[in-house]
Amino acid sequence: MPDDAGDDRGGPGPRRAEFGVDLLLDLRGAPGRKALGDALRAAARDGRLHAGAVLPSTRTLASELGLARNTVAAAYEQLVAEGWLISRQGSGTRVADHPALGAGLPARGRDPDGSARLRFDFTPGTPDLSRFPRERWQRAARRALARAPHGALSYPDPRGLPGLREALAEYLARARGVRADAEHIVICSGFTQALHLLAGVLRSRDATRIAVEDHGLPRHRRVIAAAGLDTTAVPVDREGARVDLLAGEDAVLLTPAHQFPLGVALSSRRRLGVLRWARRTGALLIEDDYDGEFRYDRQPVAALQADAPDLVAYAGTASKSLAPGLGLAWLVCPPGLLSDVVRAKEVSDGHTGVFEQLTLEEFLRCGDYDQHVRRARLAYRRRRNDLLAMLTDRSLPAVPRGIGAGLHVLIDLPARSAEAETTVVRAATRHDIALTGLSHYRTPPDPDASVAALVIGYTRPPGHGYRAALDALGGFLTTALAR
Amino acid sequence: MPDDAGDDRGGPGPRRAEFGVDLLLDLRGAPGRKALGDALRAAARDGRLHAGAVLPSTRTLASELGLARNTVAAAYEQLVAEGWLISRQGSGTRVADHPALGAGLPARGRDPDGSARLRFDFTPGTPDLSRFPRERWQRAARRALARAPHGALSYPDPRGLPGLREALAEYLARARGVRADAEHIVICSGFTQALHLLAGVLRSRDATRIAVEDHGLPRHRRVIAAAGLDTTAVPVDREGARVDLLAGEDAVLLTPAHQFPLGVALSSRRRLGVLRWARRTGALLIEDDYDGEFRYDRQPVAALQADAPDLVAYAGTASKSLAPGLGLAWLVCPPGLLSDVVRAKEVSDGHTGVFEQLTLEEFLRCGDYDQHVRRARLAYRRRRNDLLAMLTDRSLPAVPRGIGAGLHVLIDLPARSAEAETTVVRAATRHDIALTGLSHYRTPPDPDASVAALVIGYTRPPGHGYRAALDALGGFLTTALAR
Repeated sequence: MPDDAGDDRGGPGPRRAEFGVDLLLDLRGAPGRKALGDALRAAARDGRLHAGAVLPSTRTLASELGLARNTVAAAYEQLVAEGWLISRQGSGTRVADHPALGAGLPARGRDPDGSARLRFDFTPGTPDLSRFPRERWQRAARRALARAPHGALSYPDPRGLPGLREALAEYLARARGVRADAEHIVICSGFTQALHLLAGVLRSRDATRIAVEDHGLPRHRRVIAAAGLDTTAVPVDREGARVDLLAGEDAVLLTPAHQFPLGVALSSRRRLGVLRWARRTGALLIEDDYDGEFRYDRQPVAALQADAPDLVAYAGTASKSLAPGLGLAWLVCPPGLLSDVVRAKEVSDGHTGVFEQLTLEEFLRCGDYDQHVRRARLAYRRRRNDLLAMLTDRSLPAVPRGIGAGLHVLIDLPARSAEAETTVVRAATRHDIALTGLSHYRTPPDPDASVAALVIGYTRPPGHGYRAALDALGGFLTTALAR
Repeated sequence: MPDDAGDDRGGPGPRRAEFGVDLLLDLRGAPGRKALGDALRAAARDGRLHAGAVLPSTRTLASELGLARNTVAAAYEQLVAEGWLISRQGSGTRVADHPALGAGLPARGRDPDGSARLRFDFTPGTPDLSRFPRERWQRAARRALARAPHGALSYPDPRGLPGLREALAEYLARARGVRADAEHIVICSGFTQALHLLAGVLRSRDATRIAVEDHGLPRHRRVIAAAGLDTTAVPVDREGARVDLLAGEDAVLLTPAHQFPLGVALSSRRRLGVLRWARRTGALLIEDDYDGEFRYDRQPVAALQADAPDLVAYAGTASKSLAPGLGLAWLVCPPGLLSDVVRAKEVSDGHTGVFEQLTLEEFLRCGDYDQHVRRARLAYRRRRNDLLAMLTDRSLPAVPRGIGAGLHVLIDLPARSAEAETTVVRAATRHDIALTGLSHYRTPPDPDASVAALVIGYTRPPGHGYRAALDALGGFLTTALAR
């Protein structure tokens, strides 16, 4: 069989193995578990190992490459955990159908410099996807579809299925204090769409500026800009956004329950203040309650909307509580905004897919949603506690911030500059650790900022590898924080 | 037990029956199958019979109302077919969870005057939803989710899952002649979103006008207007849109394979003409291939995109081939437009839900999609043939148009005025028949138009009731066309 003509890379130890297709594995340096893993990952990433390709047995590959069988098995196992490979009893190991997805960092969590996936992933932004309750979700989907009348598969109300909206109204009242009836809820394909609709409606009402917290998701600012609106940035301190600085803005986008990424809750003083401001000026409050379900050490902070349903557009999402891929969020509209938002939804995408709506309704009604959130909350609290314990055990000079809720913590870096932060994030990649610097979320970007911190998400490392990931992180931080 | 205070309607024969809740049934006129059906429908519609309520057995109700048991059973059966009720072995008959959906006409097919559902529904716009392959779809969903790596549940590429895009590229090439690779496909939540994205991109490039066919879906014009663009209307004749009349437009939205609702295909002369126009002026061709799968009497018309992938943004959808509720469509972008469309998608909703994407990919790959479309095509052809035979058998003075493809036919009315059309549509409702007049699709609306026609969709009546529906339609048309 001819050598793979497409592979022109040299390297200390190129070896050829039979993979259904001929493939030259690029085993750099000492051929071992890591080198083999890297080579397989690279081959899957760039398509030389195509989706569905069956890998040789560990015995065969070990013998071909002159490695111990355990070494090959360990490499396979790691790649299965990462989603590159799929292993099934009886049908061997093969390349996953969606290698780019199974293995790539999602766009939001991707390292700012776009670096490829690393072994220890502490980027924030997604829940632990291995916890997604696949079995229960499937069962709920089956029950929901079996019960749905044919008409439910047609074009629904642009707001979404009435049954789901009713179930959400009940859930949001109970879990988040939100005051809503089903009529005022609009099902969206994610928070991004909710913001897109709101920004469009505001623009059509001649709004010009929306205030955002000076740390937040860059995408949200892009959504607002795409609607033709300017953003102004409100600083965030220990009491949350400095809403006392709001002036002529037409709206403000807030994360009151758990500021992203700084982790503080909006103080009751500020809550009162911003409600007063909105009532006085007629501005809209947009509440992004992205992870309101996950609070660990004290009573949940109720939604801001609970205090003034007529001033607040409240948005929640299944992206953190279940999975971002679901593409499900809910927007509770103040009465004065509802018909405009519905019209915007109608000309934006007509409706959000009903199949997942049917399933989520069933999931809420049968109690599976509550149970899942409860279990996830316990699991995340354990992960957070382990992370905090690791920091304490190593006597690291770091007081983590924003630890009371959510899926990430903040660790300040001693060298207080954005440049120092970038240096640390880059250095981490050399230790196979993916980190995100706080400056990634700063608006407007400020290379001269005098703060430096890491936004450490603790949901991505697989459960069985969390301990090892923490060890790696601890080892790295010991050096990095000492600088 | 007290009478239902909420029911203040009189009527010749109100009778009370025990429905778990107390309920006064409003049996107007001769108490029979139809009267009972109407009364139950009304009670379910306005919520007096709430979702989930268990109905008395046919025996019990028959005895309470003094009707024959067969009469009650027939009424139940009709309402089950309509989606108001659900009947399950062993657990009796109960009110469906989504009565408003199961029974209401979808917004698009709803009678222009918003009238409530009628017994014989010949409005166009949705496929036969009772044909949706629930079992196979569920099985595909289970297989797809079982195989998906955890990462597939995260934020995907804004274009959608690579695996689905690859499967679609292959399918579209095969079935529609579309020349596309997966990279240029953007999964959308429906054609509406595809058009929303395109219109937004065109607007950001300083476009001002999009031409639309002078008969089409009103929503499409609203989508374009919402993006801040004007529409100009191009007349449609026997060769399709009069693209020879296009002048300074920045784009044109066409339904080349099967004009909606007039049913003609764009002639090859016009195809060449519009491609030349686009190449000369730099305008964009937007191809809405909404029902390209359904052609009955001759070779399918290949997509316009096949002739010029650099000029045409091609959009297909699962709304007609599977179900509108899925919220899945695909946009094949010309290379010069791709990155702008992806950016627009990113700030519009981030991504379309991945669960149905995973399932559709599996559905395409395992051959279920082809099989479903094949079977649906046969079933629709049968329905169409039955409709045509009915028109012939009754020697109606109507030459149906647009019969070669799609899910509807056009029947011209002798009195050629929009007013006459409205009169006929209204008269039909009194015969329990829902029809849609052609003028509903006219742009700009023209109350003085000198054409009058009915757009008759043949997918909605339930299979077992199709014959009866045709009889009712035939009886009505015999009178209406004689006028």
